[in-house]
Amino acid sequence: MLTRFGRVLAALAIFTLLSLVRPALAQPAPGDPLPSWNDGPRKSAIVAFVHETTDKGSAKFVPPEQRIATFDMDGTLWVEHPMYTQVVYCLDRVKALVKHKPHLKDVEPFKTALSGNHEAIFKLGWHELGKLIEATLSGMSVKDFDLEVAHWLETARHPRFKRPYTELAYQPMLELLRYFRANGFKTYIVTGSGQDFVRVFAEKTYGIPPEQVIGSAGETKYIYAKNGEPVLIKEPKLAINDNNAGKPEAIHLVIGRRPHAAFGNSSGDRQMLEYTGAGAGARLMMLVLHDDAEREYAYGPADGLPNSKVGTFPQSLYDEAQAKGWFVIHMKTDWKRVFPFEK
Amino acid sequence: MLTRFGRVLAALAIFTLLSLVRPALAQPAPGDPLPSWNDGPRKSAIVAFVHETTDKGSAKFVPPEQRIATFDMDGTLWVEHPMYTQVVYCLDRVKALVKHKPHLKDVEPFKTALSGNHEAIFKLGWHELGKLIEATLSGMSVKDFDLEVAHWLETARHPRFKRPYTELAYQPMLELLRYFRANGFKTYIVTGSGQDFVRVFAEKTYGIPPEQVIGSAGETKYIYAKNGEPVLIKEPKLAINDNNAGKPEAIHLVIGRRPHAAFGNSSGDRQMLEYTGAGAGARLMMLVLHDDAEREYAYGPADGLPNSKVGTFPQSLYDEAQAKGWFVIHMKTDWKRVFPFEK
Repeated sequence: MLTRFGRVLAALAIFTLLSLVRPALAQPAPGDPLPSWNDGPRKSAIVAFVHETTDKGSAKFVPPEQRIATFDMDGTLWVEHPMYTQVVYCLDRVKALVKHKPHLKDVEPFKTALSGNHEAIFKLGWHELGKLIEATLSGMSVKDFDLEVAHWLETARHPRFKRPYTELAYQPMLELLRYFRANGFKTYIVTGSGQDFVRVFAEKTYGIPPEQVIGSAGETKYIYAKNGEPVLIKEPKLAINDNNAGKPEAIHLVIGRRPHAAFGNSSGDRQMLEYTGAGAGARLMMLVLHDDAEREYAYGPADGLPNSKVGTFPQSLYDEAQAKGWFVIHMKTDWKRVFPFEK
Repeated sequence: MLTRFGRVLAALAIFTLLSLVRPALAQPAPGDPLPSWNDGPRKSAIVAFVHETTDKGSAKFVPPEQRIATFDMDGTLWVEHPMYTQVVYCLDRVKALVKHKPHLKDVEPFKTALSGNHEAIFKLGWHELGKLIEATLSGMSVKDFDLEVAHWLETARHPRFKRPYTELAYQPMLELLRYFRANGFKTYIVTGSGQDFVRVFAEKTYGIPPEQVIGSAGETKYIYAKNGEPVLIKEPKLAINDNNAGKPEAIHLVIGRRPHAAFGNSSGDRQMLEYTGAGAGARLMMLVLHDDAEREYAYGPADGLPNSKVGTFPQSLYDEAQAKGWFVIHMKTDWKRVFPFEK
């Protein structure tokens, strides 16, 4: 799918890969835990935060059990353009869905999702996407769902990078996750994407176990299969809406502690950073700004970048970050390397 | 409150404490991780389970990240008679509530809760208790709620044992929690009581951090206080109903993995044990039977014990345990010592 996008962007990708040969060969400082980060205020702030929270002599020391760091996923830990990975999954699953329910073929929005008309698909509103999401993410057991997602992840390829989505995690953020964990922090994903969806790959891709993945989640229903085995069936009813104010609410529900560090990239992460920053003692809040059309994507509309309905980073959020001491990570200048596959 | 019960039971408690002097002086085997458990099939099963799941050469080895053990709380980790501790808390809080809302004084079930008439209070149905619970557990910030609970725990005393409720954790279960953790298991509380309520004391009492407490939980709402500070307000709307089938559903929502061991004591834990047992490989399921009126309480109605609407252990559950290889812990004969304060 998205082949028109794909062709344009593949050309960009080739250019990008070529342009990256030089910086990728640069040697990191010995023992540098963040070799893919360029020196500068963002890298310094991360290192200073880890030092002051883990040094027992520091006034800002944080006991190990309180070291919680939360990370948005789409656009913060991996690529979210041209469309959130889980939405791509849902669109792909419509084909399997109509095999079981053929009458849906002629019903909107399923008809459009099946049309192959990418322009029309992109014009679907959130309400219509919601219908697709509900239909493709419920009605099966959690075990069957996991198998479907795992199979899809093996076969699906990003339209621009022509790689499995799980290879599109950002190298600097993978280093950051490891650096935090090496210093006793529990790293959590707090994502608007589906909790069950993300749990399938979070451990392998990010080193984050299922119990540290918080996402939007439907209810499940405990029933018995024909053979008597108890199974959990995914229901079309939202239990956690993990966006905006829903992020601190879900953090309280699942973790029950306020994070000491929070990372995001869009208006959906605003309240998570605000909630984190409202705690006493050492706090670190950072937002990834996508200003690198060559290596990845460029969108805002903050800082004069093009607008986007996927992963919107408004100017108001940029201004709030400046006012409150939240750091804005400029992908283009702060990241030496974007993806692990860059050699 | 409950002073009529209290007087009768205090007499029993004194007798109980005297009767316990001898067994408590017995020396545990050197290096025994479970010194308060009498030798027998239950203790042997626990030790065998831990050995086979942690020995890399065992066919039933479980990788550390999959070592999840879940524990019901009321009646499994601490005393639940004559009434669940959180219900006692809610009844006590009614007094504070009517200071702010005096008109409730003459409205049922608040009027009965304030009456001091323990017989009438005990006759309140679950629906009326639900009204009291809703009124006393919502409307405040999670921070204020935590302070209220912490203060109550300091001052409240169990009517029979005349001790803070947190001193009524079972010594054999505290040893079991430590033994599991020392062998790489993550120990979770999975309780019908309130998640926020239990989190206040779970770390100190059981060594279980807030993020490993799953309980019934209301929604919270992220709002701004007058000074602009963001706060989470407890809402009178259930997000997690952590009883019966709600237990495996909540385990999936919060942990996302099936436990390898599960401990309970009543019909509300049946599905959690069933779900645990339905997994492949090593699984351990155990139920605490309260058959010890001298040292604690005796209720079932399983095994000919008196019936109880608090912590009901029906004969059908007892029979199911026998049929499925779940172990029934007989408090009277399996536990050498019940409470930490027994010397």
